[in-house]
Amino acid sequence: MRIDVLTLFPDMFTGVFGSSILGKARDKGIVSLNTVNFRDFSNNKHNTVDDMPYGGGGGMVLKAEPIFGAVEHLLEEQARLAMDTAVRKPRIVLMCPQGKPFSQEVAQELSEESHLIFVCGHYEGYDERIREYLVTDELSVGDYVLTGGELPAMVVVDAVVRLLPGVLGNEQSAVTDSFSDGLLEYPHYTRPAEFRGWKVPDTLLSGHHAEIVKWRRKQSLERTLVRRPELLERAELTPEERKWLKEKRIQLERATQSSK
Amino acid sequence: MRIDVLTLFPDMFTGVFGSSILGKARDKGIVSLNTVNFRDFSNNKHNTVDDMPYGGGGGMVLKAEPIFGAVEHLLEEQARLAMDTAVRKPRIVLMCPQGKPFSQEVAQELSEESHLIFVCGHYEGYDERIREYLVTDELSVGDYVLTGGELPAMVVVDAVVRLLPGVLGNEQSAVTDSFSDGLLEYPHYTRPAEFRGWKVPDTLLSGHHAEIVKWRRKQSLERTLVRRPELLERAELTPEERKWLKEKRIQLERATQSSK
Repeated sequence: MRIDVLTLFPDMFTGVFGSSILGKARDKGIVSLNTVNFRDFSNNKHNTVDDMPYGGGGGMVLKAEPIFGAVEHLLEEQARLAMDTAVRKPRIVLMCPQGKPFSQEVAQELSEESHLIFVCGHYEGYDERIREYLVTDELSVGDYVLTGGELPAMVVVDAVVRLLPGVLGNEQSAVTDSFSDGLLEYPHYTRPAEFRGWKVPDTLLSGHHAEIVKWRRKQSLERTLVRRPELLERAELTPEERKWLKEKRIQLERATQSSK
Repeated sequence: MRIDVLTLFPDMFTGVFGSSILGKARDKGIVSLNTVNFRDFSNNKHNTVDDMPYGGGGGMVLKAEPIFGAVEHLLEEQARLAMDTAVRKPRIVLMCPQGKPFSQEVAQELSEESHLIFVCGHYEGYDERIREYLVTDELSVGDYVLTGGELPAMVVVDAVVRLLPGVLGNEQSAVTDSFSDGLLEYPHYTRPAEFRGWKVPDTLLSGHHAEIVKWRRKQSLERTLVRRPELLERAELTPEERKWLKEKRIQLERATQSSK
């Protein structure tokens, strides 16, 4: 997979793209990660990439020209490299708070592409013509205000690259699978069995595999009920589990009421 | 504000903590951003920080000792520096998919603290005793699987630091405010008025301030209705706007049905 990131701050990416799983995926040749400073595609003598908004208001707006210029440069380069006219067009992803909420499903979908281009802006916003006539996707990583699209792009790149075949070992792949049942994870414990007087639950030390599986599932269900009940609506549950959760919910409500 | 980040990959933070708004906030002395490699607090001869999970299963679990050791070291250092016994205890934030969903409200709350410690893990999970007996908060930036807590910590740090007084200029502060009405932003345009034949909407070029305000508000409402209708439930709307949105929703539904 080829990933290009358009940014005014390419230095922000050096540490992240060079470390941990991303660094390894790059070293193995599974992904190429490139940054492009779109200031190089500004066509005015002061190399400005932003300007005042039409209609007034605070903040600056990212101009259309440098983003169109940088993306078209990448497309031409890719066409020259590929020579194969059947090559799929890249997905051009704009990182912005107005985008579609990023999720594991979107990560899976993007991981099946061969070329992704991310557009990271700063400032008040993007000239709308970038949205309308250039990008194929708009993504948001969450409902909070960040300085720019750089950290969101890193988040998406990390989530996507770890899904590419050969990036994770078999052992690590299980981590991803454990998310796919739609529940929060059960508690984990490792040595020592007693740390400062705090002990590991007996069940986990018992060696009874079936009991451990049961304990973990109940812990997952209960944690999801307490912390993120809305996730249960989409989770895969047995009728027994639904019944157990219903009783648990009543217990929790009673406990909340009596503590008032 | 002081921010410490516990991580096995301190190099990942260099570019991000040195660039853009975070770099400037640091240079102005508004925030100190430090990374601590908790491998230095491993008490075994091989410097391991992870171990097999009790009860079996794939993946490795982050041990309690190095995290407790690193946090306690920071607390002692801070106590020595402060000398003031009335100093507030830091918030110790664990980044994990099981955490409370991070939001702009949480960013606001954290921005009122004087000391934040972030714990970033990799591997399958954290020893549960870190959750139960050490951290004060658990945060998740979204429902997707990432390699570690590093990128989520950067996201939270960026969202929090930009709220500190003196970090943003007045012009940029408006960006944050525009999110607080709970709607997605209206489209922005800047020069040229015509780019490759695509024109800026007449209203924005008209100079009629009241018309521009009305156009932008309608665009915000419509974009939120189309892209993130669930946000409208919590948005501040006038009765006229609610009526207009209801009509618009019916129009959209009809359009969807007739295109089927």
